[in-house]
Amino acid sequence: MSTKQFDIAVIGGDGIGPEVVAEARKVLDAALADQDAQLTYTEYSLGTEHWLATGETLRDETLQKLRGHDAILFGAVGADPQDERIPSGLIERDLLLKLRFELDHSINLRPVRTYPGVATPLASEEDFDFVVVREGTEGPYVGNGGTLRRATPQEIATEVSVNTAHGVSRVVADAFGRAESRRGHLTLVHKHNVLTHAGDLWRRTVEAEAAKHPQVSWDYMHVDAATIHMVANPQRFDVIVTDNLFGDILTDLAGAVSGGIGLAPSASINQEASAPSMFEPVHGSAPDIAGQQIADPSAAVLSAALMLNHLGLSSAAARIESAVHDQLREWARSQTGHGLSTAQRGDAFVSRLTPAAVS
Amino acid sequence: MSTKQFDIAVIGGDGIGPEVVAEARKVLDAALADQDAQLTYTEYSLGTEHWLATGETLRDETLQKLRGHDAILFGAVGADPQDERIPSGLIERDLLLKLRFELDHSINLRPVRTYPGVATPLASEEDFDFVVVREGTEGPYVGNGGTLRRATPQEIATEVSVNTAHGVSRVVADAFGRAESRRGHLTLVHKHNVLTHAGDLWRRTVEAEAAKHPQVSWDYMHVDAATIHMVANPQRFDVIVTDNLFGDILTDLAGAVSGGIGLAPSASINQEASAPSMFEPVHGSAPDIAGQQIADPSAAVLSAALMLNHLGLSSAAARIESAVHDQLREWARSQTGHGLSTAQRGDAFVSRLTPAAVS
Ligand SMILES: CC(C)[C@H](C(=O)O)[C@@H](O)C(=O)O
Ligand SMILES: CC(C)[C@H](C(=O)O)[C@@H](O)C(=O)O
Repeated sequence: MSTKQFDIAVIGGDGIGPEVVAEARKVLDAALADQDAQLTYTEYSLGTEHWLATGETLRDETLQKLRGHDAILFGAVGADPQDERIPSGLIERDLLLKLRFELDHSINLRPVRTYPGVATPLASEEDFDFVVVREGTEGPYVGNGGTLRRATPQEIATEVSVNTAHGVSRVVADAFGRAESRRGHLTLVHKHNVLTHAGDLWRRTVEAEAAKHPQVSWDYMHVDAATIHMVANPQRFDVIVTDNLFGDILTDLAGAVSGGIGLAPSASINQEASAPSMFEPVHGSAPDIAGQQIADPSAAVLSAALMLNHLGLSSAAARIESAVHDQLREWARSQTGHGLSTAQRGDAFVSRLTPAAVS
Repeated sequence: MSTKQFDIAVIGGDGIGPEVVAEARKVLDAALADQDAQLTYTEYSLGTEHWLATGETLRDETLQKLRGHDAILFGAVGADPQDERIPSGLIERDLLLKLRFELDHSINLRPVRTYPGVATPLASEEDFDFVVVREGTEGPYVGNGGTLRRATPQEIATEVSVNTAHGVSRVVADAFGRAESRRGHLTLVHKHNVLTHAGDLWRRTVEAEAAKHPQVSWDYMHVDAATIHMVANPQRFDVIVTDNLFGDILTDLAGAVSGGIGLAPSASINQEASAPSMFEPVHGSAPDIAGQQIADPSAAVLSAALMLNHLGLSSAAARIESAVHDQLREWARSQTGHGLSTAQRGDAFVSRLTPAAVS
């Protein structure tokens, strides 16, 4: 038996990031113990503390090193908004978004599902399960804006959303592929009645790709209407494909309606495998609860499972997902789990892991 | 007693628009009967039918006539998406958005509240009441985009969001004024960690205006986080001020969580009174249920009440709002109302109107 080695970069980041990533590592190691695959980790100290100490967010040299890894496990970044030393949004843009753009993370994948027994803010207790395929490298996120006559009554500030056939077609192709292996339905979300140029590109791209996937049915929904369906009947969704900004908004909403953003994982995928993909919880750094060992590590652990899937270790990924689901159901059933620390939750997931099939 | 005359333009529009506007007129007339104010109406046939018949959406001449009215009562526009004769979004842009822009409707006001007894999709039954002050004349709605190398693999489509000190400061000032006469709290919603130029203009504008309103507390929320709060604790909002696109998205979501988009009214206000303001339900033309007398006229009736308020007829406006609230509560209590036609609902609101105080 030859052991496969995977070389993982770990960026714990700010706030609760390091705490939840530690639990993800714990669960990963337990799931792979005695398996024919092994992860080695390199920790990178990046984020607010690093910026305060060095004035650097991400050096070219560091980026080069990150490129050499098989995958990146990411916690969260973002300074405490009360901390006036750190310009708002700086770390998010110059570290997190920079990684997504530099490493060409075309697919920002965000699976959304309810967990039996886990309460949601919705009155309906019907389960749902869908996936948002959010474009990750263009749209309004390109940083392509400007300001004229700043701080005068004549100030003009612009933001340019840039959308390309290259960027849109690859994410749309990915989304159709996922729909094919799921329930066979895709929903394009945009606002093409107002954003006519970008909307038209998205729609034509979906139409062209749909012709190649006759088994997949698809519909179109304006982003405003999509928020209504998200609270009124999320069961109608299977695969949502949408742009960077709409995807950002819809996945926070989806996280909330499915039982809380503390459970929502994500994967930022480089489709061409020309650079490592990155796995991170949808939630932020939550500086208000950092360092107290009260953060929920579920989203980080589920993100780690997405990473294993991406590395081809799908049975270990499935065992982690089952362990999390079973444990969440158990906590919900028994009304325990509320007082548990971050580490105790991680331990509980580990203890729920079923033994691996002999390989 | 001299009777004040107000000259109202009525645009029923498409789908359920004419049906719900008819009920709004019915309730308006009943509320003003024997009062020292009277509305006269001029109906304008605009929308999909008109476009199919004439190829015109809104002639300059018609726009000029509309300018002469005291206010516009608007139903809904938007063609049946199945109807391939009508280019998608054409009527929305060239009629509805054209009116908002040409008539300088800087404030798109969208009050949101639960109605005692009316079910919402949320598990929590706690009431809430807030108002979204959405910018109405700029942002990503300016139609300032383009396409290069259309339908080639090198296609680039852009959308430009244009934000000006002029446009932002007037809506922010309005929002602070409203917060002052409500519960004294304002929330700026944007995405300034990504849309740095526009976000910076919005934030500086709010900071400057806040200095003039020491009684009003304010906070900032990213649009993605705002969707979470909208389902998790909408009670935290009093006045939300935001841009055109974020306001579009948040108010559909707000309509959904407060009991359905069938109850959500809006006002598109020209702050300088240089042109008539416009009053319309947040919902669309719903072509699938048009002409069947099953549409809920509540949002149109509540929009008509906003119109009366705007015209200075606030006691009649309050009587309409009370009638709608009382009737909705009664229907919820008695579980009746479900089978009622659009006109029967309008009649019910009329019958609930309390007699006006002698003026
Ligand atoms: C932190 C921020 C830049 C980021 C985004 O907007 O993409 C976050 O909200 C997310 O969804 O991952
Ligand atoms: C019909 C459409 C152009 C419009 C908008 O996007 O503003 C509608 O959704 C609204 O909210 O009034």
